[in-house]
Amino acid sequence: MSKLTRFGVSLDNNLLAKFDSRIKSKNYTNRSEAIRDLIREDLIKKDWQEGKEVAGAITLIYDHHKRELVNKLMGIQHDFGDMIISAQHVHLDHSNCLEIIAVKGSSKKAQQLADTLKSVKGVKHGTLSMTSTGKDI
Amino acid sequence: MSKLTRFGVSLDNNLLAKFDSRIKSKNYTNRSEAIRDLIREDLIKKDWQEGKEVAGAITLIYDHHKRELVNKLMGIQHDFGDMIISAQHVHLDHSNCLEIIAVKGSSKKAQQLADTLKSVKGVKHGTLSMTSTGKDI
Amino acid sequence: MSKLTRFGVSLDNNLLAKFDSRIKSKNYTNRSEAIRDLIREDLIKKDWQEGKEVAGAITLIYDHHKRELVNKLMGIQHDFGDMIISAQHVHLDHSNCLEIIAVKGSSKKAQQLADTLKSVKGVKHGTLSMTSTGKDI
Amino acid sequence: MSKLTRFGVSLDNNLLAKFDSRIKSKNYTNRSEAIRDLIREDLIKKDWQEGKEVAGAITLIYDHHKRELVNKLMGIQHDFGDMIISAQHVHLDHSNCLEIIAVKGSSKKAQQLADTLKSVKGVKHGTLSMTSTGKDI
Repeated sequence: MSKLTRFGVSLDNNLLAKFDSRIKSKNYTNRSEAIRDLIREDLIKKDWQEGKEVAGAITLIYDHHKRELVNKLMGIQHDFGDMIISAQHVHLDHSNCLEIIAVKGSSKKAQQLADTLKSVKGVKHGTLSMTSTGKDI
Repeated sequence: MSKLTRFGVSLDNNLLAKFDSRIKSKNYTNRSEAIRDLIREDLIKKDWQEGKEVAGAITLIYDHHKRELVNKLMGIQHDFGDMIISAQHVHLDHSNCLEIIAVKGSSKKAQQLADTLKSVKGVKHGTLSMTSTGKDI
Repeated sequence: MSKLTRFGVSLDNNLLAKFDSRIKSKNYTNRSEAIRDLIREDLIKKDWQEGKEVAGAITLIYDHHKRELVNKLMGIQHDFGDMIISAQHVHLDHSNCLEIIAVKGSSKKAQQLADTLKSVKGVKHGTLSMTSTGKDI
Repeated sequence: MSKLTRFGVSLDNNLLAKFDSRIKSKNYTNRSEAIRDLIREDLIKKDWQEGKEVAGAITLIYDHHKRELVNKLMGIQHDFGDMIISAQHVHLDHSNCLEIIAVKGSSKKAQQLADTLKSVKGVKHGTLSMTSTGKDI
């Protein structure tokens, strides 16, 4: 772990009071941690824009009754095999599944994989969570 | 499964050409599917705004070496036990973990759970993917 | 203007280096200002979610050749007259106009106004910029 | 104006009912217009990602009492003079101003201009609305 640096931040009292109340409602116990999180969020946005190596989660909602669908999704995941880490499957009800796929790789390829999975007929909704490999933040 | 209705949509040729090229690059094979996806995405946004029952995925990036951290995250997940379906844990490298938690419940409570997990010291980044239970779309 | 408070923030050196490079590329000259901006952005998000009094800008792109369109947009703006401050009109080319409407009021009503204007046939695109009245930040 | 093409879209009745209720609440009077808007929104997102020529609006909230601030903002706007179309100034209260700048040019340069203006000390908040020149949609 690298060394810590401490530096001063000056905030107008009014803004500080609002910040304190905001982070309290988000359950933070100290300001440094809340500020670190705002900074990290901003940095991760940049990594995704610049095509860096990132991590993410793709969610898919679909009706598993369509057998072809499951096979297609499986095929696509194998095509992108080098960037898929693991997948988690949840039976939401008799028909609907939530599949959550953990991915790591270039942000561009992660976006492509998500787009390709979402375009499959029968996939009702898909999202791509953009997060980080944790290495540099 | 409910019945299909077919209706006409009129598009300016110029807009149609651009739409066709856009959905091709996203790997859609037909327009109806692409339009259904735009519609569903818009509906899910509304469900989240209105506090409906939704599904989602929370991602967390953290350094597992801090033992207290893992215990805290576990404790919080138990406090929200009724809305957590399952969790998937990925070892990104020697220190960094990606944990992906599948949730179902009111959108407000899902947001609270995500906020609470993200506020824990040592969690480097967190996201909340907003998706649907699939029931009504 | 209210008094300033100065407090310390501790950041891992690695994260600090990345933060410094990020804010340099955004042209910030000091850390406090960059941190204040991240904080304010987060607070304004909250004001919009909670329906507080906010300010904003609605953009509309439309083809002015359709006379009925201009009249309709005018009518709607008068219906929401108490929240519209002023409007700016730009001739993008022979056909296309960019209209930017400055608004102040409850976030909910601002959203309604934007939705209503965007729904008018002939309006090609609309956005709602969510900002603040500046009073509390 | 270019020719219209009409094509069929098939929607599950359940999804169609939800779509109809959603667009009614947004004040649309017909489905084609609502679908065109979803399509255009998706296309404009792409134009911004790919650095195409776009239009937009930058909002700034600041306290005009700081004379240097106004001069700095003016200077920056002149540096980016070729992409600024016009600006609208609103006195929100005794201290706070809302300035809305209409811009046209490459999406990258628009982002740079917005970043540079937002980084000026005294600017409390800034947004960039991403819209279109209207030419191709």
